[in-house]
Parts: sequence; structure tokens; C-alpha cells
Amino acid sequence: MSTVQRSPLTRKLSAFVSLSETELATLEHLHQRSRIFVAGRDLVQQGQSKQAAYILAAGWVCSYKIQRDGSRQIVDVQIPGDFLGLRSILLRTADHSFEPITDIQAVEVLAADLLDAFAQTPRLAMAVLWAASRDEAMVVEHLVGIGRRDAGARMAHFLLELGYRLALVGMGTKAGYACPLTQHHLADALGLSAVHVNRVLRQLREGGLVTFREGHVTFNNYDRLITLAEFDPGYLDQTGPLLK
Amino acid sequence: MSTVQRSPLTRKLSAFVSLSETELATLEHLHQRSRIFVAGRDLVQQGQSKQAAYILAAGWVCSYKIQRDGSRQIVDVQIPGDFLGLRSILLRTADHSFEPITDIQAVEVLAADLLDAFAQTPRLAMAVLWAASRDEAMVVEHLVGIGRRDAGARMAHFLLELGYRLALVGMGTKAGYACPLTQHHLADALGLSAVHVNRVLRQLREGGLVTFREGHVTFNNYDRLITLAEFDPGYLDQTGPLLK
Repeated sequence: MSTVQRSPLTRKLSAFVSLSETELATLEHLHQRSRIFVAGRDLVQQGQSKQAAYILAAGWVCSYKIQRDGSRQIVDVQIPGDFLGLRSILLRTADHSFEPITDIQAVEVLAADLLDAFAQTPRLAMAVLWAASRDEAMVVEHLVGIGRRDAGARMAHFLLELGYRLALVGMGTKAGYACPLTQHHLADALGLSAVHVNRVLRQLREGGLVTFREGHVTFNNYDRLITLAEFDPGYLDQTGPLLK
Repeated sequence: MSTVQRSPLTRKLSAFVSLSETELATLEHLHQRSRIFVAGRDLVQQGQSKQAAYILAAGWVCSYKIQRDGSRQIVDVQIPGDFLGLRSILLRTADHSFEPITDIQAVEVLAADLLDAFAQTPRLAMAVLWAASRDEAMVVEHLVGIGRRDAGARMAHFLLELGYRLALVGMGTKAGYACPLTQHHLADALGLSAVHVNRVLRQLREGGLVTFREGHVTFNNYDRLITLAEFDPGYLDQTGPLLK
């Protein structure tokens, strides 16, 4: 099986475990019930208790919580190869909502499908646990960042992390990446006002660091941006298979 | 096997999956290399890359990150039945440190042990994935809470969540629980100064809501405290086995 044919999830899990032909087949077998969802219409809603998760195969999604005051906190952005609502398959109640930012292709996975796959190859269970651990490490990184980083560093960190994650599934480089997020998404993800986001992006652009414009992020000076963000990608754990 | 003899991890995972005798045996078999660690001496240090995790069998631990400015952010508190550094077995580099708050008993688990256990019973892999998902849900809840809740509500939420988690392993009730945390731990966990923590605790005590004193948390008015914290325990997913 050539790299080109592999699903984004397979490419991603390959960063952790060297997958055998059997394991590759089991993983691809999970990709059976593929569905299209249109932008703006939630897949899973906060409080909903349907036991299905999705593997995102194409397009972008954000997961968010609505606060009691009506404001929206974007918890994370999902890109191809990510699970959507793995927690909602495992926990009884979805603790947040998923909104497709673009039209997306997603594969439905039931608890029974995962159990079957794990029974065939326990190494796959380790790999999925790795992906879940990595997701948690990202949330921890955001948690720690919110209180500590100023708006510029927070934005820089967010754009760098996304680029790093996209590179793992062949969708980004140190030059930049296609990005369908709007400034409103950035505001809801970083806890900033729309006006503040606009100002920060202008400063980063005028400083020759990064340009966010027309569906594209361009890194103008990758190294200086990393310094500004104090970005250490160790928590993303992308340096090659650990489990041979 | 009676409930009394079961390890805290077994009690906890039983909230998600009804464990068969074989699964119970596999789980207890993981508890082989038990070690004692003394209070105040880190088990795993940030940046360290040793591939071992621990199951906490007795005592309390906190996981934290040291910021560049030297301040400490407590990411979470671990109680019996929790994994310590499951991420550090799976990710190459520990992204934070673990400090025993009390003397503790912890069981060393290697990646190979987990893989063996998963091979014997894939339902155990689902259960461990559930525990990891629940840990992530907690971090998300904290992430969202930090920006939104005032100091009183944040403290109330923290003490309620701990009580709820402790109840799952038989160490807490709606009346309260034994708690070895100091006010310094509370400060580092909630992003408050020690003076602020002291004031908030006094207000909660004088308001007849909760008393934090001499190694014990006493809920004086559980329902009013829940209202103050806007505490909805759904994300802790403790209402009985989902996977029969």
C-alpha cells in the first residue's frame, strides 16, 4: 500500500507505531461508513448521548462549548486524521459540540468497531491511546498557555501548532498551509475579541513573522515566530515511530 | 473477588465496563511491581524520557509544569486508581512532572505490560481509553473554567470535582473527604495567590458552604455549593457501566 493511498489517520498513527500490513488493513477497514457533512451544521451536540464517533477524513472541524453567558469557547480544531468525539463514544454524554468549518468527509465509528479492531491487533489500541494522549497533551498546553502567554504569543503558538499537526498528515510545511479558519474562529479559540485578533494579526504581519490572509497562513519568518511563541513541539511527539 | 480486595483502578474502570473474572485477573496482574515513593520527591520529571507509567494505588500526587518565569502550574491532582504519566509511556517525552503530596504506593507499568493486557482482553483497552478520555474531559473543563469562573466558583468546582472522583474509589462522600492538599497546592492549581486562596476559603466557610481545614474538606451545604460552582458532573461519567 503506497503512502498516497493511506488515510490521514493511518499517516498520523504511523508516527507512533510501525504498522504491519495486517494492522494497516484493520485500520483501513474502520473506514467503511463514510459520510459527508456540510459546513456549519453540527455533527455532535453538547449534551447529546449518541454512541458514535467519527474519523475526520477530509476538511476542518472545530469542537466548542457554549458558556452560560452564551459565548463560545473553541476547545480545539480538528484536521484530517483526527477523531471527532472519541470521548462521546466512551463517555455517556458529549461534553462539547462539533461544527464543520468546511464541508467534510467523516467516517462513523461505533464502540463495537473499535473493540473489534483492538481484538484483532492490540498494537492499534496502543496507537489510538497514543492519539488520545497527544490530544490531552495539547489541551494541557493550551490550558497552561492561556494564563501565561500574551495575545501575540498565544496567536503565534496556535498557528505554529496547527502547522505542525498539518505537516504530519502532509497538509503543511514550514512555508505555511491552507487554512479555512476565520478571524472569528481565532477569537473564540484564543479567548480574544475580534478587534483584538485583527490587531494582533496585523502586528505579526507587519513584524514580518506570519501572514494570515485569504484562507492561507504564510510563515514569513518561522524561526523568529517560534522564539516569540516559545513553541516547543515535544508534546506533539512527531519524531518517528516509537513502537516498532 | 470481593469489592474490598479490588484495587482502586479496578473500582474506577468498573464504572465504565463490567469486568469479567478474566478481565479482573488481567487487571490485577498489572499490579506487580509495586513501589513506595516519599512525599515531595518527583516520580517523573518534565522533559524526562523514560518509558514507564504508574498506577497510583495509595496516596495523593500532583502533576505540574514549571513555567519559564519559575512559577508552578498544577495541571491536575491524582488520586488512587489514576494513571501517573500514561502519556509518558506513550509520548516520547514527559510533558510535565509528578510530585507525591503524601507518601504513595505506585505500580510500575511498561508499554509491554499494557500491550500484553490489551492482547488478552481488548475490552480493557477500551476501559483504559475511557479513563484517558475522562482525564482529557477534566482538563477541558478546567481550561474552560479558568477564563469563566471567578475565584469562589473555581475553588468550589475544584473541591466538588475532587469529592466526586474520590467517591468513585470509596474515599469520599457528600459529607466530605480527607484531603492532604495545602493552600499552596490550591493556589498553584487554581492560578490564585496564597493570600487570595486564604480569603476565598474563609468566605466559603463563613458562607456555610464548605470548610477546608486540617487535612479535611467538609461540605457544609453540598447543594448550594453545586449551584455556586455551576457544577455538572456529566463529564466525569460515573453513573454505572456503559459497556456490559
